[in-house]
Amino acid sequence: MSKKRKKIHIMKIALAQLNYHIGNFEGNLQKMLDAVESARSQGADLVCFGELAVCGYPPRDFLEFDDFIRRCYASVEALQKVSHGIGIVVGSPTRNPVAAGKDLYNSAYFLYDGQVLGVQHKTLLPTYDIFDEYRYFEPATAFGSISFKGKKIALSVCEDIWNVGNDNPLYTICPLDEIMHEQPDFILNLSASPFDYAHATARIEAVRANVQRYNIPMFYVNHVGAQTDIIFDGGSIVMSSANGGEVFDEMPYFEEAFKVYDLAEVQRGGQRHEQPQDKTRLIHDALVLGIRDYFQKLGFKRAILGLSGGIDSAVTAVLSAKALGPQNVRVLLLPSQFSSEHSVNDAGETALKPLFWAQPFNITEENIQARIRGTLLMAMSNKYGQILLNTTNKSEMSVGYGTLYGDMCGGISVLGDVYKTEVYELANYLNKDGIVIPLNSIEKPPSAELRPGQKDSDSLPPYEVLDPLLYQYIECRKGPSELIDMGFDEALVKRVLRMVNINEFKREQAAPVLRISTKGFGMGRRMPIVGKYLS
Amino acid sequence: MSKKRKKIHIMKIALAQLNYHIGNFEGNLQKMLDAVESARSQGADLVCFGELAVCGYPPRDFLEFDDFIRRCYASVEALQKVSHGIGIVVGSPTRNPVAAGKDLYNSAYFLYDGQVLGVQHKTLLPTYDIFDEYRYFEPATAFGSISFKGKKIALSVCEDIWNVGNDNPLYTICPLDEIMHEQPDFILNLSASPFDYAHATARIEAVRANVQRYNIPMFYVNHVGAQTDIIFDGGSIVMSSANGGEVFDEMPYFEEAFKVYDLAEVQRGGQRHEQPQDKTRLIHDALVLGIRDYFQKLGFKRAILGLSGGIDSAVTAVLSAKALGPQNVRVLLLPSQFSSEHSVNDAGETALKPLFWAQPFNITEENIQARIRGTLLMAMSNKYGQILLNTTNKSEMSVGYGTLYGDMCGGISVLGDVYKTEVYELANYLNKDGIVIPLNSIEKPPSAELRPGQKDSDSLPPYEVLDPLLYQYIECRKGPSELIDMGFDEALVKRVLRMVNINEFKREQAAPVLRISTKGFGMGRRMPIVGKYLS
Repeated sequence: MSKKRKKIHIMKIALAQLNYHIGNFEGNLQKMLDAVESARSQGADLVCFGELAVCGYPPRDFLEFDDFIRRCYASVEALQKVSHGIGIVVGSPTRNPVAAGKDLYNSAYFLYDGQVLGVQHKTLLPTYDIFDEYRYFEPATAFGSISFKGKKIALSVCEDIWNVGNDNPLYTICPLDEIMHEQPDFILNLSASPFDYAHATARIEAVRANVQRYNIPMFYVNHVGAQTDIIFDGGSIVMSSANGGEVFDEMPYFEEAFKVYDLAEVQRGGQRHEQPQDKTRLIHDALVLGIRDYFQKLGFKRAILGLSGGIDSAVTAVLSAKALGPQNVRVLLLPSQFSSEHSVNDAGETALKPLFWAQPFNITEENIQARIRGTLLMAMSNKYGQILLNTTNKSEMSVGYGTLYGDMCGGISVLGDVYKTEVYELANYLNKDGIVIPLNSIEKPPSAELRPGQKDSDSLPPYEVLDPLLYQYIECRKGPSELIDMGFDEALVKRVLRMVNINEFKREQAAPVLRISTKGFGMGRRMPIVGKYLS
Repeated sequence: MSKKRKKIHIMKIALAQLNYHIGNFEGNLQKMLDAVESARSQGADLVCFGELAVCGYPPRDFLEFDDFIRRCYASVEALQKVSHGIGIVVGSPTRNPVAAGKDLYNSAYFLYDGQVLGVQHKTLLPTYDIFDEYRYFEPATAFGSISFKGKKIALSVCEDIWNVGNDNPLYTICPLDEIMHEQPDFILNLSASPFDYAHATARIEAVRANVQRYNIPMFYVNHVGAQTDIIFDGGSIVMSSANGGEVFDEMPYFEEAFKVYDLAEVQRGGQRHEQPQDKTRLIHDALVLGIRDYFQKLGFKRAILGLSGGIDSAVTAVLSAKALGPQNVRVLLLPSQFSSEHSVNDAGETALKPLFWAQPFNITEENIQARIRGTLLMAMSNKYGQILLNTTNKSEMSVGYGTLYGDMCGGISVLGDVYKTEVYELANYLNKDGIVIPLNSIEKPPSAELRPGQKDSDSLPPYEVLDPLLYQYIECRKGPSELIDMGFDEALVKRVLRMVNINEFKREQAAPVLRISTKGFGMGRRMPIVGKYLS
């Protein structure tokens, strides 16, 4: 794109980085109405919300309910009514009037003076990892800028800017290329771009690739907040096109934010505000928000978890205390606090004795113990209305080192996307201002604590070996020959990949996992159960 | 399309309706090699397999592993090598050589005389319900017929024929329209089209819509067999274009089949062979196959289940005995066979007493009982290597009438897509040649059997009312106002929809459900957990 000389106009643009709640139309609308009033009172010309802000993201198959779409339209109309004198840009599904193709578009509305000034549908529909957008939406085939107060604005929705600057682009079109013929003054992008610990960097690079390509500033508004497993970190970006793309401002991570920007200042550039992106800190903040929103959005206040003396449950306890307040987290010391847990096990084994005949002791007895413990924890959960937090880590979940309906119980898995070696990093991070995770639980050898003297290393390779192997297989999708070429032991590769694959049935029934990596267990990783590949 | 006069040539076409196993490259290849030899020995010119036959369907995220794709190519090459003198048509993923767009195509290979005679990529990529094809595949943009032994063949893959004859088509293109310019002699369609109890009829109608539109015969090859929750029923179709589309032959439902057809005879038409499509019989046969394949493909032989005296467990027991052989199904009478189950409950409640303080009796105690029972059944499962069958029906699953980690335990849910009223129909069907489901269990009021005298109707509306309401909400996606307009009671609608929605967290952790309807629980129905819509 050729470099263009821009006139400097006065325009104030407000970005509202909000925590939406899927299907909570009243709540989402009220937040946006409040932000419109803030924007108006601060003299903004324009206020921008996120992708599908009226209904929250991802709405999943609620989109297939006509009633749900009607309510989306009602929210857009309510915003339209308050748009006198102020532009409101908001994401909503819209109906496709043409019979052929999907029934909906994923759209950005530009509302002003009680009118719809323009609508731009999303072109690039992410359908990978946790995303299913082509399940619902037809891609845009028409493109145009919005003329507003003497400016031309290139509207785009999330993925529409992500096909630029890739070696292996997922799509065959860059929709902003089409709009650039109209020489817009800046780009507005309405996003719902979920967190992973590498995403803040990737997001800035994606925005910069566009700002460089088109040589105009971009205002990028993201969601913040967690929707079950999927966490939005905010980090909305204002990028100047000066000096090859400067982060003029980056909104905070993991909290709601509202700010008004002066377009002329952004165009001038010369300001840089980018936040630190320390992996462990990001994971920590994401998990705290993930726990908090899971409870808050379900209408629960209190959590319960079993504390085994190991590091996973200790870290989960501290994270949940930060998320919910220590007074709302009930911790049960296992096994001591269920003082007669052993008698339940004994009674269970007695009840089974006539059916077990002369069968030898095996993993069954360990599973009974884990399940009895799960039953006792769930009883506490039911009796007191406290949601049980699952404390399984990603290394264990990967290789199936856990008992279904036992230690795999829980409403939400806090560490199921955090490898054991990363749990240690989290523990050290939590201890940085004073010991909250007992050093003993950090230093002692990991154990499932189901047999005296049992250690994870009895049946698993050391986590320093296992975790990088799992990472290459799960996150990077390397096959056996590639892993062996990377230097992993052939027998270990075969054994570990088999463990991962034959345990798909357990993960199928696992609690939702707070997603912090590029490949978490759950909707983002869809594997056959009866498959016979590397198993 | 104009009606064309066709010359009659001799060509023998073999259809192989096979039960593939996802990722089992050796097994799938061997089946196909055997079919090639049968075809050759019966003088066939051509033998046709299903969509993605080399790797099985749906391969899901295994497609993201380059190693997996390499193995698909290896299988295609092995088939290519045995194609001397015989055409082999087979589905496989292929790599997209262009950087932009998805990395793969979903392709039909036409192999002959050791060469690749042609490849047609799939155009219409189903991305709805259980389907995720746009997650992996780029749609075709090039179309052409295959010239083979003096005939022109229009190759197509599954969904490519489903955009014809719809009022609300999902796609904006019909790929066969493009190929028809070349005046092909017949259509070959390689499918992997899963069963639901209305699908056989829909499939015949879809094939007929194409045969009418293009006025040439179609050979349609489907998969048969279950891949965890998804069941393929076979029913491959040979349709003549005579008389507006006659089902010249329909291959059997729910079993492998191989047959050679004479093209000239098909072109002449005048033969009609269509199978009966009784809903309850289809569901019965699908569930039996679903159970059988789940065990067989996981390498297990034996099942266990708890028999409560109710109809669900009785029907599950009979279906599994049919699937696995009665000698491979262990049935435990509950609670009597765990003769001291009560002492485990007592011990559990004693262990909890210090923690329960003066809390009143509530649902907790029922849940404890259900979970203890689940633990005992799972202990039997673990000890004897028998997979526990889950017996929950779709009505219960819908409204969350079941205990997570209790009666929701199990490797596979047999009836989770069968409404209670349909379970009764199944029971009567099973009893048609002699009583196998005790009449008592059919006639007595349904109960979860967790309190003396407890009946489902204490807390649920009668199933004759509940099931149609659930069907309209779940299968037909009607919203509250539409349901009330249909005559359902307003308070009941509100209550039931809320029950469905607030129990999403339970279904998230449920066993995979054998899918027999147009909207089963599992991958085909993706709902937010923390959503606040109709809840």
